[in-house]
Amino acid sequence: MSRFDVVSFGEALLRLSPAGQGRLAAPGALEKNAAGAELNVAAGCAQLGLSAAFLSRLPQNALGAFLAAQAREHGVSDQLLLWDESPAARLGVYYYEQASAPRKPAVVYDRRHSSFCSLSPEDLPPRAEGRLFHTSGITLALGEGPRRAAAGLMEAFRRQGGLVSFDVNYRAALWGEAEARAAIEPLLPLVDVLFVSEESLRRMFGRTGALEDIQREFAAQYGLRYVFSTRRQALTPTRHQFTSLAYDREAGQAFTEEPYEIDVVDRVGSGDSYTAGALAGLLQGGGARRAMRLGNAMAALKCTVPGDLPRTSLAEAERLMAAHGSSLPQSEMDR
Amino acid sequence: MSRFDVVSFGEALLRLSPAGQGRLAAPGALEKNAAGAELNVAAGCAQLGLSAAFLSRLPQNALGAFLAAQAREHGVSDQLLLWDESPAARLGVYYYEQASAPRKPAVVYDRRHSSFCSLSPEDLPPRAEGRLFHTSGITLALGEGPRRAAAGLMEAFRRQGGLVSFDVNYRAALWGEAEARAAIEPLLPLVDVLFVSEESLRRMFGRTGALEDIQREFAAQYGLRYVFSTRRQALTPTRHQFTSLAYDREAGQAFTEEPYEIDVVDRVGSGDSYTAGALAGLLQGGGARRAMRLGNAMAALKCTVPGDLPRTSLAEAERLMAAHGSSLPQSEMDR
Amino acid sequence: MSRFDVVSFGEALLRLSPAGQGRLAAPGALEKNAAGAELNVAAGCAQLGLSAAFLSRLPQNALGAFLAAQAREHGVSDQLLLWDESPAARLGVYYYEQASAPRKPAVVYDRRHSSFCSLSPEDLPPRAEGRLFHTSGITLALGEGPRRAAAGLMEAFRRQGGLVSFDVNYRAALWGEAEARAAIEPLLPLVDVLFVSEESLRRMFGRTGALEDIQREFAAQYGLRYVFSTRRQALTPTRHQFTSLAYDREAGQAFTEEPYEIDVVDRVGSGDSYTAGALAGLLQGGGARRAMRLGNAMAALKCTVPGDLPRTSLAEAERLMAAHGSSLPQSEMDR
Amino acid sequence: MSRFDVVSFGEALLRLSPAGQGRLAAPGALEKNAAGAELNVAAGCAQLGLSAAFLSRLPQNALGAFLAAQAREHGVSDQLLLWDESPAARLGVYYYEQASAPRKPAVVYDRRHSSFCSLSPEDLPPRAEGRLFHTSGITLALGEGPRRAAAGLMEAFRRQGGLVSFDVNYRAALWGEAEARAAIEPLLPLVDVLFVSEESLRRMFGRTGALEDIQREFAAQYGLRYVFSTRRQALTPTRHQFTSLAYDREAGQAFTEEPYEIDVVDRVGSGDSYTAGALAGLLQGGGARRAMRLGNAMAALKCTVPGDLPRTSLAEAERLMAAHGSSLPQSEMDR
Amino acid sequence: MSRFDVVSFGEALLRLSPAGQGRLAAPGALEKNAAGAELNVAAGCAQLGLSAAFLSRLPQNALGAFLAAQAREHGVSDQLLLWDESPAARLGVYYYEQASAPRKPAVVYDRRHSSFCSLSPEDLPPRAEGRLFHTSGITLALGEGPRRAAAGLMEAFRRQGGLVSFDVNYRAALWGEAEARAAIEPLLPLVDVLFVSEESLRRMFGRTGALEDIQREFAAQYGLRYVFSTRRQALTPTRHQFTSLAYDREAGQAFTEEPYEIDVVDRVGSGDSYTAGALAGLLQGGGARRAMRLGNAMAALKCTVPGDLPRTSLAEAERLMAAHGSSLPQSEMDR
Amino acid sequence: MSRFDVVSFGEALLRLSPAGQGRLAAPGALEKNAAGAELNVAAGCAQLGLSAAFLSRLPQNALGAFLAAQAREHGVSDQLLLWDESPAARLGVYYYEQASAPRKPAVVYDRRHSSFCSLSPEDLPPRAEGRLFHTSGITLALGEGPRRAAAGLMEAFRRQGGLVSFDVNYRAALWGEAEARAAIEPLLPLVDVLFVSEESLRRMFGRTGALEDIQREFAAQYGLRYVFSTRRQALTPTRHQFTSLAYDREAGQAFTEEPYEIDVVDRVGSGDSYTAGALAGLLQGGGARRAMRLGNAMAALKCTVPGDLPRTSLAEAERLMAAHGSSLPQSEMDR
Repeated sequence: MSRFDVVSFGEALLRLSPAGQGRLAAPGALEKNAAGAELNVAAGCAQLGLSAAFLSRLPQNALGAFLAAQAREHGVSDQLLLWDESPAARLGVYYYEQASAPRKPAVVYDRRHSSFCSLSPEDLPPRAEGRLFHTSGITLALGEGPRRAAAGLMEAFRRQGGLVSFDVNYRAALWGEAEARAAIEPLLPLVDVLFVSEESLRRMFGRTGALEDIQREFAAQYGLRYVFSTRRQALTPTRHQFTSLAYDREAGQAFTEEPYEIDVVDRVGSGDSYTAGALAGLLQGGGARRAMRLGNAMAALKCTVPGDLPRTSLAEAERLMAAHGSSLPQSEMDR
Repeated sequence: MSRFDVVSFGEALLRLSPAGQGRLAAPGALEKNAAGAELNVAAGCAQLGLSAAFLSRLPQNALGAFLAAQAREHGVSDQLLLWDESPAARLGVYYYEQASAPRKPAVVYDRRHSSFCSLSPEDLPPRAEGRLFHTSGITLALGEGPRRAAAGLMEAFRRQGGLVSFDVNYRAALWGEAEARAAIEPLLPLVDVLFVSEESLRRMFGRTGALEDIQREFAAQYGLRYVFSTRRQALTPTRHQFTSLAYDREAGQAFTEEPYEIDVVDRVGSGDSYTAGALAGLLQGGGARRAMRLGNAMAALKCTVPGDLPRTSLAEAERLMAAHGSSLPQSEMDR
Repeated sequence: MSRFDVVSFGEALLRLSPAGQGRLAAPGALEKNAAGAELNVAAGCAQLGLSAAFLSRLPQNALGAFLAAQAREHGVSDQLLLWDESPAARLGVYYYEQASAPRKPAVVYDRRHSSFCSLSPEDLPPRAEGRLFHTSGITLALGEGPRRAAAGLMEAFRRQGGLVSFDVNYRAALWGEAEARAAIEPLLPLVDVLFVSEESLRRMFGRTGALEDIQREFAAQYGLRYVFSTRRQALTPTRHQFTSLAYDREAGQAFTEEPYEIDVVDRVGSGDSYTAGALAGLLQGGGARRAMRLGNAMAALKCTVPGDLPRTSLAEAERLMAAHGSSLPQSEMDR
Repeated sequence: MSRFDVVSFGEALLRLSPAGQGRLAAPGALEKNAAGAELNVAAGCAQLGLSAAFLSRLPQNALGAFLAAQAREHGVSDQLLLWDESPAARLGVYYYEQASAPRKPAVVYDRRHSSFCSLSPEDLPPRAEGRLFHTSGITLALGEGPRRAAAGLMEAFRRQGGLVSFDVNYRAALWGEAEARAAIEPLLPLVDVLFVSEESLRRMFGRTGALEDIQREFAAQYGLRYVFSTRRQALTPTRHQFTSLAYDREAGQAFTEEPYEIDVVDRVGSGDSYTAGALAGLLQGGGARRAMRLGNAMAALKCTVPGDLPRTSLAEAERLMAAHGSSLPQSEMDR
Repeated sequence: MSRFDVVSFGEALLRLSPAGQGRLAAPGALEKNAAGAELNVAAGCAQLGLSAAFLSRLPQNALGAFLAAQAREHGVSDQLLLWDESPAARLGVYYYEQASAPRKPAVVYDRRHSSFCSLSPEDLPPRAEGRLFHTSGITLALGEGPRRAAAGLMEAFRRQGGLVSFDVNYRAALWGEAEARAAIEPLLPLVDVLFVSEESLRRMFGRTGALEDIQREFAAQYGLRYVFSTRRQALTPTRHQFTSLAYDREAGQAFTEEPYEIDVVDRVGSGDSYTAGALAGLLQGGGARRAMRLGNAMAALKCTVPGDLPRTSLAEAERLMAAHGSSLPQSEMDR
Repeated sequence: MSRFDVVSFGEALLRLSPAGQGRLAAPGALEKNAAGAELNVAAGCAQLGLSAAFLSRLPQNALGAFLAAQAREHGVSDQLLLWDESPAARLGVYYYEQASAPRKPAVVYDRRHSSFCSLSPEDLPPRAEGRLFHTSGITLALGEGPRRAAAGLMEAFRRQGGLVSFDVNYRAALWGEAEARAAIEPLLPLVDVLFVSEESLRRMFGRTGALEDIQREFAAQYGLRYVFSTRRQALTPTRHQFTSLAYDREAGQAFTEEPYEIDVVDRVGSGDSYTAGALAGLLQGGGARRAMRLGNAMAALKCTVPGDLPRTSLAEAERLMAAHGSSLPQSEMDR
């Protein structure tokens, strides 16, 4: 295993979605996109200048090849991919339908029995190295194999001096909150950087009080170095506000900024782009405030492009951050 | 003729429209949709769980076949369709151009001389049965044949104990207000459920005063059981507010609710989806208040999908009604 | 269960395929089609003027709704559809990639664990009636539940005086030849009309000699009334020749005709369209020769339209048969 | 009226056709093209370097504007267009479905009641000048007004010294052969350049014998200077052979050449492109042999581009003619 | 050179842009549009009823042919186009990427070395006539040849009694403000109608004070008859406000109106459509107030259609102006 | 510089082409593809299992980013790419129009002044390593900088023990045959593997006699280890035959096989895919015969997919080679 800045571990999915505001039940083509929370994170990190690899297991067929090619196209190394050559090999799929107010976007999941779900820790490469390892609660929810593999990788990275990042990423379609908490809590002591929504802090972990206070307690309790919580206000499916609260345990301080006003093109994956921005901010030495700001900019940018994976660059994110903070008149176009 | 819950009678049209905000006079493909006020109503009723048939006359060619297939696809029975095999057979067409502010959507009609216009009452099947019959002022405007056929069907349904629903649906492109009133007024005593816009009540029928009072008088004067008037505020072509006022003569009461805020994808046919929702609400025993609420939800949903015909389900409409009335935080997506 | 002319029983699939000669592993949209051998047969029968219903089990989600709507659009009744509301409900998918010589078309199957595979005979409606029942070896291969259900339906139709049609339809991706033969052979005495390829007769059933002789023996041995074997020559992926051999046991005679020369647009489903043509030919009283000719015409027409399901009419098939047999100069266009 | 090289007179149509091999009765967009035999001829002439105007009558709406813009785009002047501002104004439409063997292309006409059909000779501009006037039998078939206008224009052009070109262009969907002959024959003495198919010569005009002999007699009988008859062999909808026979009365000689082998993309309008090539060949002084060769090349080129109107240039036609006649190795590409 | 109402002189470009909110760096098709500030102006003038010609230099290849065809399609004469047949001939290109907030639209220019840049005054036709000549600062920035040609044409039009219109149109990508001012200032005495942004007046020309006062001084200093300055507020890439200030030196008065609220589809070229509206307003005798209002309406309409060139008509602009000024309820659609 | 199996050096281009048989001069979108002879070769090598990098110079903008992403997507490393940040940076473009008989495909080049053309040897990375270096005559034709850089790289690879591959790839649009020969001949002693067309051998190098004899002499004269010459017969733009002759100097033997019959989807780049197949065959130790066969299969496969770059795999090429050589009945589909 080469030494990458970021190694993320999770399932890749095929996303299929009708064009525009079309419906899944209607005739018409489906747009094909690569997807997967941890792949999204790796792509964002790569586009911000880090070397990033995605560790996953794909079916050895044309759809697996599509996913690997998409990973590469978005800047992510395919060196760590594992290939499932069994007749049962399959790529998980999710069908996604956009919407405009008052209709809501809708998802149909078809991700059971995938090649990733049947991964076992023994499939993993013998050595695991890198500056940072990232995975999420989705991976833990996908089965015993992925869960044990994730735990093993977290330990391995810690041992060799890497950072461990974890996104709680609770999905009610995959498991219950109690089950999730039972799986996640024992791993938190292995985590350096935690991404967790305010809702999960309150409902899954039963915390109360101001968000900043909850972050502080959480960081203290589990020895987390950073806790990030995004704050999204979905006014309508096409109009969001986005900011976040980032707690730095060493500094004993939480950071936030004014929310971005977003005309949403495709909101899926924006939380993962946030994660990528925050991780890149930390790895590039900017501290929690810069991580929070880069995360916010990445999430906002992601919302303006189609697909789950980000399509941007550090330069673009920097320009956006500069404009966001500024009270000067802004040019209308990047020429 | 089988016994359907709803039989609607009117003209089916081919709608052709450029993609997105393209112009009819520019090069580019035209999207092909089925259309027709009464077909829209039948489709909405079917999607809400009623058995619905569309009674119309189509040319015996590939375009007529398209319309019949679209009716079926949207859940409407094609058993009552009549086929015009004459060399003059034609399907009416309308060309529709979307727009964004301050430009207005535009329509070019090409519906004269259609197979439906030349329908005569003798073409109709000998028996006409069902729980409810629906037609609109458009049908009356299309010629002597359709008008006489409509009147005959209204009488026939009343005789066999069915309800009669009528939508005034005034179209200045088809006839004048005086002419329309002269045709419509004699039929009102046959009507149980009337759909009429506030504008038509005031201008065509010369009423004044509060809308609720006008509805009450109208219901009393013509023996209508229900009067529905939609209230749409088209802030821009892509931003509408929609609610309605529903008067129940027996209850002596009018019902309304807070308007829906709609990011409009395609507003055409939303009035007909309203009608479908209201009729389904009544037929499913919910009374005028439920009919008004189901109608509003159906109209709002229709505005968010492309095409004239609705593409939804009772379950989706129920979810929307629940969310609309609720002050609880709403999930951002249907997963 | 209503009394239809034809009831077919099998799995419905979602077919996803790149436009034109694009590759599955490349970026780009996927065209969405309904598919499934027995659905294809029902659609062909409906388009030839029979009442046809498709008996299957679909997930209760937007994809199941798409399949049901497509069945209706193509003329097939959705009255016999069963709906799977479990969280494990899924629609089988296959990905299909067209090709031009010397590249071959390719398929990626993702149909395991579907709602249909988990159907059990107890899910079926209590009564099963109709003039003809049709299923295929694919259904038998999909699991114990579908297999037992198919056998039960064959018996039920025979009991109530209907005909039973069966297409061997061997798919090496689903099972081995020995396993297939073991499942199929015990059911053959229940079959009136058998569709079986020459290759299956020779390899699965171990027959030798001239095809006509094999058909004769097979019909005698199992009490089959008709045996149909298609003869396709795939010169290239875009150039096929197609004819068939139809044996009528009562007449003691086999029928064939000159092959159609086909510029193939989409060959998938053409065997099922053949079956539909043959069944309609029989049910409409034309005998084996007419069945063979209508089958060939339907197969040829199917190859010229995109998608698995046919899109044609009896009138079009008749025109093609007349032209095929004729030595007169043909008009270049249907005006 | 400006003095153009070529003035053509006839109806313009909107052509709507599904993409690729799709069917009209299936869902999906329709490609929008300008069409009309005489417009096609004007466009071909313009692309070969002549100044050309199209004299027609269009509805004053977005569809009329589309036609005028398409005429301009293809190089044809819109100065002679007449605009119908009446509420009955309409643009004729035809729906066109391509096909591959053995399915045939199909047309659905919807051109009755068009603005052109109701044109009367009084609508025409007072003066009519130019080097050549062209119209066809289609125009005569569209009604009394167009017929009288055409006759008047033929006379006017002759009076002012222009040439008159006429294409018999028989369409069985518009009139019978006897009716057509009765309308056309009286006008033949006004014609200098006649385009007529071998089939029309034999069936409509009852001639027998070799085609060259029929052309010679016809030219002599009616005082025609040139008679052109195309010879197309439609092997399949996508594979044609095309050449023609051109008779020059003055030279007393008929010219032909080896047919072009054509992989057909869209054959509609290729006869009109032939006409344009032949007329340009004559007007540019090349005589009947050059006219025949330029016509053949234009017809072949038209078959390789989508739409009814040609999209080419004199330079491209010259390159094709050079290659067609040559036995030298040809470059594979125009770089 | 024919006598046109308006002759505009400048470079034509090919614009290539991804569909919707897609990114240039992502796979997918590019939409092809004609572009060029002065071409846009000519098109707008033509659509408002003036005869307009575009004087430019294009490569003699398929792309040059595309531009000429697009000019014609939009109503602009191609008679004054010059063709570059050299091997170095090229059409300038710009790539344009739309965006939604907070992402900004982006442009990649590839216009160097174009056939227009290498134009020399000697290439121009010997006589230059018309009611009005228009060019812009972009033309001056493109090189010595275009600059000298523009100056010569301005003088020639003045000599023969025509008006001269000039749009400062400063583009930082092409030159610096000091260089631009040095080139523009000497030509201002030749100008009758000046279009200049408030920003250019303040930064390039160093003016201060109220805009109206600056316009007045400017007009006085250079003998300008009219000075137009647009006022656009780009709230987001998809939401603009647009109005303008028009100064009439003779009247000694400046005119403005309430801004249009615009849901932007494509903002590029809207400044040029403003110019076209203003020039048409002046040439059609409406004075500065009408010019300002017609310009505003044209700019607003342009923003609602895709592409750089306008697609509208005087009738549509009039309807919009009437609605904009009115407090009456507006119909929702143009039927 | 990492040590790759294959390093190719040359210009990358943007290819823009209308869909299907559309014309460049017509409205409509352009499909965007990456292109460039040496990039094509690197992609083919990567897809056959070699590690491959593309050494080139791209503009630092969205189009350069597109090219780099496409390289990655197709399996090629972007590590050796150089970025041009100057204001003059540009990506060369070529516009490509497909055709069907008798029309010919056409190309419009717009590749002058590109960032690659202005590359100088000093821009290159200090060390150049790998098993094989590949470039072509196109690179030599693009200017002094690329030519000197190519020569330097050839020497460097030889020095460090790598193989050097060169494709004459003569393009008349770039230079004359004499100029090409003068540039190429001095470099031939540095070449191990030469790709040269029979036409270039005869016309540019003035050889006569049988192709095999010419190859032998050429190999002897310049010390070449292998000489490959493709033999393509372009029967029509959509129907090609393809094989090749491969000479192995050590073995003193030339190899060929029966040509592939190809239904061409997109022939551009198939020569480069041949080169990739041949190089992979050699590097994987198969010798000249295997190289020739793998090259032929790769060329045939390339012709069946859209775009310049191959989209295949070693497994697919192996399957094709097996089928090509076989007389057994072939399955119609890869399932």
